Amino acid sequence: MTRTDIARRVYNHTWKLDPIVRSLLDTDFYKLLMLQMIWGMYPKVDATFSLINRKTTVRLADEIDEQELRAQLDHARTLRFSKKEMIWLGGNTFYGRKQIFSPEFLAWLEGFQLPEYELRKKDGQFELEFPGPWMYTTMWEIPALAIINELRSRAAMKSFAPFALDVLYARAKAKMWDKTERLKKLPDIRISDFGTRRRHSFLWQRWCVEALKEGIGEAFTGTSNVKLAMDTDLEALGTNAHELPMVLAALTDSEEELRRSPYHVLQDWQRYYGGNLLIVLPDAFGTASFLRDAPDWVADWTGFRPDSAPPIEGGERIMAWWRQKGKDPRTKLLIFSDGLEVESIIETYRHFEGKVRMSFGWGTNLTNDFEGCAPIPTDGLNAISLVCKVTSADGRPAVKLSDNPAKATGDPREIDRYLRVFGDKERVRQAVKV
Amino acid sequence: MTRTDIARRVYNHTWKLDPIVRSLLDTDFYKLLMLQMIWGMYPKVDATFSLINRKTTVRLADEIDEQELRAQLDHARTLRFSKKEMIWLGGNTFYGRKQIFSPEFLAWLEGFQLPEYELRKKDGQFELEFPGPWMYTTMWEIPALAIINELRSRAAMKSFAPFALDVLYARAKAKMWDKTERLKKLPDIRISDFGTRRRHSFLWQRWCVEALKEGIGEAFTGTSNVKLAMDTDLEALGTNAHELPMVLAALTDSEEELRRSPYHVLQDWQRYYGGNLLIVLPDAFGTASFLRDAPDWVADWTGFRPDSAPPIEGGERIMAWWRQKGKDPRTKLLIFSDGLEVESIIETYRHFEGKVRMSFGWGTNLTNDFEGCAPIPTDGLNAISLVCKVTSADGRPAVKLSDNPAKATGDPREIDRYLRVFGDKERVRQAVKV
Repeated sequence: MTRTDIARRVYNHTWKLDPIVRSLLDTDFYKLLMLQMIWGMYPKVDATFSLINRKTTVRLADEIDEQELRAQLDHARTLRFSKKEMIWLGGNTFYGRKQIFSPEFLAWLEGFQLPEYELRKKDGQFELEFPGPWMYTTMWEIPALAIINELRSRAAMKSFAPFALDVLYARAKAKMWDKTERLKKLPDIRISDFGTRRRHSFLWQRWCVEALKEGIGEAFTGTSNVKLAMDTDLEALGTNAHELPMVLAALTDSEEELRRSPYHVLQDWQRYYGGNLLIVLPDAFGTASFLRDAPDWVADWTGFRPDSAPPIEGGERIMAWWRQKGKDPRTKLLIFSDGLEVESIIETYRHFEGKVRMSFGWGTNLTNDFEGCAPIPTDGLNAISLVCKVTSADGRPAVKLSDNPAKATGDPREIDRYLRVFGDKERVRQAVKV
Repeated sequence: MTRTDIARRVYNHTWKLDPIVRSLLDTDFYKLLMLQMIWGMYPKVDATFSLINRKTTVRLADEIDEQELRAQLDHARTLRFSKKEMIWLGGNTFYGRKQIFSPEFLAWLEGFQLPEYELRKKDGQFELEFPGPWMYTTMWEIPALAIINELRSRAAMKSFAPFALDVLYARAKAKMWDKTERLKKLPDIRISDFGTRRRHSFLWQRWCVEALKEGIGEAFTGTSNVKLAMDTDLEALGTNAHELPMVLAALTDSEEELRRSPYHVLQDWQRYYGGNLLIVLPDAFGTASFLRDAPDWVADWTGFRPDSAPPIEGGERIMAWWRQKGKDPRTKLLIFSDGLEVESIIETYRHFEGKVRMSFGWGTNLTNDFEGCAPIPTDGLNAISLVCKVTSADGRPAVKLSDNPAKATGDPREIDRYLRVFGDKERVRQAVKV
């Protein structure tokens, strides 16, 4: 009886690359929904995405080898949607709707590949940019982040002997399972995995998704990761992101157009999607101004995803607005997704229980929480606040204000102009942990 | 590239038996030391060993399938010492001494096999006995206990899906590693693995031994498990057990002979071994009477292993006796091995630090502590107080009084006779957890 599979061992010890992203479906579902709209409505718009490391004390370019990063990015560029993946995208039901992707869009997607990137090192950081047509560059956000985060984990674990790795993952598993046991006590909660971009690694994300599936059962509603959704027969979840209002705002030619642009985006969205996909992301330029100027029809949408205000205050503000518009919040949905931890999930759930439908999109703290797990002390396994944001559209600077000034992105002068248009009301600076 | 090793998969799915004991060296080292003496001095003595489940609420015969137990015991009987094992026993240095086993003994050992057993079920328990020549039956103690304990673990985990098993072992590893981190704070402590008989499984004991090796380094002095010592280049540790005074006491013909028998055993032992192997096990018939009647030369021995008194009181009593005999306890060794947990190890260590040399033989709570680890509640993974004791010698009942009446074994009338001879002084009933 062979004790060692010789072929596998030789393969394992001679491989050139352990690819982090192995499928174009290894991305967030909302990217595909947005992509169909961008492809349909804004095929000529250019949009540059840029890596932004908010945790500047972490010198990414010192921790991660540039050549390894290039090799991973280059590998991602070789990927195409496989036959099986295309068939699944065309044949699966998403959000209760069949054929959510049009045959024309899918035909185009079949030839999709990630466009070129620009990478430089500066002051210990990577300057990583994805310039080009929006309908190509938008697809870099998730793989770029997943690659950098996993390369950083790998670098941190390079010096770990097998036993230390064994202890590390044993502790991480024990910790994750304890979280599921706490959440299990709230059987009516609704939680989904939003942790692709910030994950420790693909395999770890998969384990965490399995843990939620086993641990909280029906309370686990799905994953934003399309590949994991396909592989594990889960719902693929997610709707839209800040890049939509940010690009459309950047393209406006007047302050009045700028002010109206957040609603313009919603109208675009509604041409493509309905039902539970009608989720408003209100905080691109501050939730207060968004609600103040919102047309009545916005209150007809299914729900809101407050993404940068403290969850309880943010949720209460939206509920007050719904009531003001004559809507019963108990028929509405709030999706929380900003920096969630078990504690804040439970606290938020208890606060809103019975008052509004709610759902939690759990990200970084789900798929990259190794605090206290390493048997050898290292900072390299602590998740950092790394994002890949649209920074310009057709050569014009793109801006995000957010409800939390610490999460604002864009040229400072342009931020000032946006603040003049949208105001600064109720924006509260909070530390951005992840 | 093959993703599945087909041959291995087929093998794994068609095997008839997953043997628990796969080597005659998978036993405690003291069994071999005692065996050499028994073989040399008492080759004609018969001794029956019997399984005793002190935790009668656990109905072993309901939890464990009798046929599986027979298959495992039968498999153990097929084992012989392998060439490599014989060479290692002959060539290795034990307790700093080369050729601790004589060539004549090793020549006999080469043909050793475990003798027959008798197995019946009664009232939900197994009646498992090993009658026959002492120099054969003595070797059943450890494999019989290891087999039953691992069969019990397996039975408890039979209904666990792969994910539950993954969580179980992740938690157990995290728990074990936390113990090593606590013990690491006491760099001068000396700890060894005495957990073979009570282990959850062979693989788990191996993991725990690796964890101690990685986690506390030099403070981990070795293992009682001969196979693990050989495989991992650790010291094989252990000296002698209660069976020696119990058998010799049973063979005596007068109360005076009986009273002297515990010292007679030591004289036998001293003919074979010296140095750090001169460890007194004082509690077979109560430590108080043992110390009261002990000849002065007993104080020249290297140390004591108090095995049933509370560690601090028991240790203090022996230290007082040493002082009374004009010995400085700081030159002497106390080996604690009864029901140790991290807490009691640390407490005992702190109490005796600087006053006496000491060492901890960590058993059940090292290799079978799954409390709080199972994601599905089960009592089947809680270790139980299961022993395999000599119950008769040449047809006469064998007795152990112990410092803890809850650990006494033997016929009640015979126990009364022993109590008349040795007295009941300072024996204190304590709950036997493991």
